[in-house]
Amino acid sequence: MITLAVDMSSGDLGSKAALEGVRLFQEKHPNEVNFLLVGKKEELEGAQGEIVDAKEVMPMEAGVLDALRNKESSMFKAVNSVKEKKADGVISCGGTGAFLTCATVLLRKIPGAERACLVAPFPTRIKGKKVVILDVGANNENSGKEIAQFALMGSLYSRCVYNVKDPKVYVLSNGSEEGKGSPEGQEAYALLKERKDINFQGNLEARDVLNGDADVVATDGFSGNTLLKGTEGVAKMMSEMMKSAFQRNIFSKLGYLLSRKGFKDMKETMDYKSVGGAMLLGVNGVVVKAHGNSDGVAIFHAIEVAYSLVKNKLVDQIKEGLSQ
Amino acid sequence: MITLAVDMSSGDLGSKAALEGVRLFQEKHPNEVNFLLVGKKEELEGAQGEIVDAKEVMPMEAGVLDALRNKESSMFKAVNSVKEKKADGVISCGGTGAFLTCATVLLRKIPGAERACLVAPFPTRIKGKKVVILDVGANNENSGKEIAQFALMGSLYSRCVYNVKDPKVYVLSNGSEEGKGSPEGQEAYALLKERKDINFQGNLEARDVLNGDADVVATDGFSGNTLLKGTEGVAKMMSEMMKSAFQRNIFSKLGYLLSRKGFKDMKETMDYKSVGGAMLLGVNGVVVKAHGNSDGVAIFHAIEVAYSLVKNKLVDQIKEGLSQ
Repeated sequence: MITLAVDMSSGDLGSKAALEGVRLFQEKHPNEVNFLLVGKKEELEGAQGEIVDAKEVMPMEAGVLDALRNKESSMFKAVNSVKEKKADGVISCGGTGAFLTCATVLLRKIPGAERACLVAPFPTRIKGKKVVILDVGANNENSGKEIAQFALMGSLYSRCVYNVKDPKVYVLSNGSEEGKGSPEGQEAYALLKERKDINFQGNLEARDVLNGDADVVATDGFSGNTLLKGTEGVAKMMSEMMKSAFQRNIFSKLGYLLSRKGFKDMKETMDYKSVGGAMLLGVNGVVVKAHGNSDGVAIFHAIEVAYSLVKNKLVDQIKEGLSQ
Repeated sequence: MITLAVDMSSGDLGSKAALEGVRLFQEKHPNEVNFLLVGKKEELEGAQGEIVDAKEVMPMEAGVLDALRNKESSMFKAVNSVKEKKADGVISCGGTGAFLTCATVLLRKIPGAERACLVAPFPTRIKGKKVVILDVGANNENSGKEIAQFALMGSLYSRCVYNVKDPKVYVLSNGSEEGKGSPEGQEAYALLKERKDINFQGNLEARDVLNGDADVVATDGFSGNTLLKGTEGVAKMMSEMMKSAFQRNIFSKLGYLLSRKGFKDMKETMDYKSVGGAMLLGVNGVVVKAHGNSDGVAIFHAIEVAYSLVKNKLVDQIKEGLSQ
C-alpha cells in the first residue's frame, strides 16, 4: 500500500485545510493510501492517518541553512519520513526554498540527474488540457544538458499524471525555427533531436505555450520562473479588471448575473487550486509543493498528484530514462 | 524641423494603414514633422510628405543576410535615410529580425553601448500607467553589464516618452531579495546599486511587473522575450475565454450588452495598438518597430513615440549616460 506524508502545519491556512484535503482524498480513494500526518498532535486527533508529532513550523522565508536546522519542523520531519522509507511521497504547502532544500539534501538526486527541477502544470486553451513547464524555478541558470533532462522528466510526468501517450515536447525559445533560442536552449535542442524516446517537436515561443498543442515545455529555471510568474501576474490583473468592469454600475452587475456561468468556468480553468501544485523532479522520492495559501480542495489535488506519481512509479521511470 | 522616415510597405495591412497613420499624426501635430514616405510611389501619391520610391518589400521572415541584400526595399531605404542624415528617426511594421539588422548595421551602436536592445511598454494595473521592459528580444543572452546599460537606457526612455521624473528601475528576478536572480541579473544589481543617476529599486519578480510600481524593468533578451510573449499569450487566451463566456446563450449575450462599457475599457488597456510599438535603443538614431499587423491608429502611436524621442533627444541623452 502507498504511504504519503503530509506536512500539516506549513500552509497559510494551517492544519484545518490540510485535514480537509486528506479527508477529501480518503473519501474519493478509500483505503488506497496510508497517511503520515506530520504536525501538532493536538490539532490532528481523530483524523484518518498516523499522526507524527512535530511541534515546530518551518518559517515561510527560511533560507538554506535555516531549513536544515529546523529538524523539529513538520516540513523537515515529513520529508525525512520519505528518506527513512516510511513514506513514498511528501506534500507540503510551506516555503518553496526551504522545501526544495530539505528535499534535495535529504532525498538526494537520482543518479545521473544533473539538477532537480520544479515542474508546474498550466491551463491551456483546450478545456481540461494541461501543459507542463519545467524548470519553473528550482534553478537560476541551467546548461543545455540540464534542459534536455528536464524535457525527458517532463515527458514522463505528462504520461504519469495526464495519461498522455506520446507527449509532444518543446524547448522554450524566442523563435520557432531551429537555431533560435538561448545558447543553452539551442544546445538542448541538439541533444533532444537525437533521442528516440522523446517526441521532440522543436522550439516554441512563449506566446504559443498555452495554445494547447504542447504537452511539455522545457526551459531553464530563470525563464521558466518568469513565464510562471508573468502568467500569474497578467491573469491576476485581467481578473481584477473583469471584476471592476462588472461592478461598474447596476446594469453591469445585472450583466454579471446573466453571464456568470461562463465566467465561473473561466475562473475554474485559470485556478491554480485545481492544478495540484508543483512537483520537484530528479530527486529520490515524490515531492509535491502546493501553493502557500492552498485550501482543502487545493491540498486534495496536490495529494492526488503525489498519489498518481507514486502509483505510476515516476521516480523509477526517471531513473531508467536518465540511464539511457 | 524634425524629419521622420516611414517604411510604408512592410506592414501586413500595406501602405493604406501607413498612410492613415501619417494622416492622423499630421492632423494632431500640424507642421511639426517632415515625412519621408518610403514605398511604392504609385500608392503614395497625394500624401502629405516627400515620397521616396522603393519598389521592393522586405520579406517578413528575412534573415540577416537577406535583410542587407534587399537594398531596394522600403525598409532598407527608410533606415538608410537616417544613416544619411536625411531623417532623424524611422518607423517600420516589417519583420523584427530584418529591421534590427538594418538598424544596427547601418546606424551602428552608440559609442560605449555593449549591445542594442528592444524596449516595449506594457500596460499596468494603474490606468494609463505604462512600465517599460527591456531587452524584450534583440538579444538571446546578455551579460550583467549589458543588463545594467539597458536599465539606464530604459530610465531615460521613461523620462522622454512618459515624462516620469525619476523612474523607478528594477532588475527582473526570481525573488525580491538581493542575491536572488540569474547570475547576470545579480551582476547587473551590483552595478546599478552604485549608480547615482538611476533610481534603482532592486529585484522584481515577474508577477509584480504589471502592478504599477515599476517604471522600468531590465532583463536579458531571452527572459524579456519570454515575458513579452507569455503576457501576450495569456491575455489572448483570457480574451477568447471572455468572449465565449458572453456568447454562451441569449442571457450571457444580454449580460454583455449591459456590461460592455467596462470591458471596452479593459480591451483598450490591453491593446498593443495604443502602446506605440517597440523601440531599438543603443543605436545612433531613433528606430521604432510597430506590430506587423498595425492599423492606422497603431502606426499613428508609433510615429508619436518616434516624434517624442527625437524631440527629447533620447539618443544624445543615452550617449551622455553611457559615457559616465
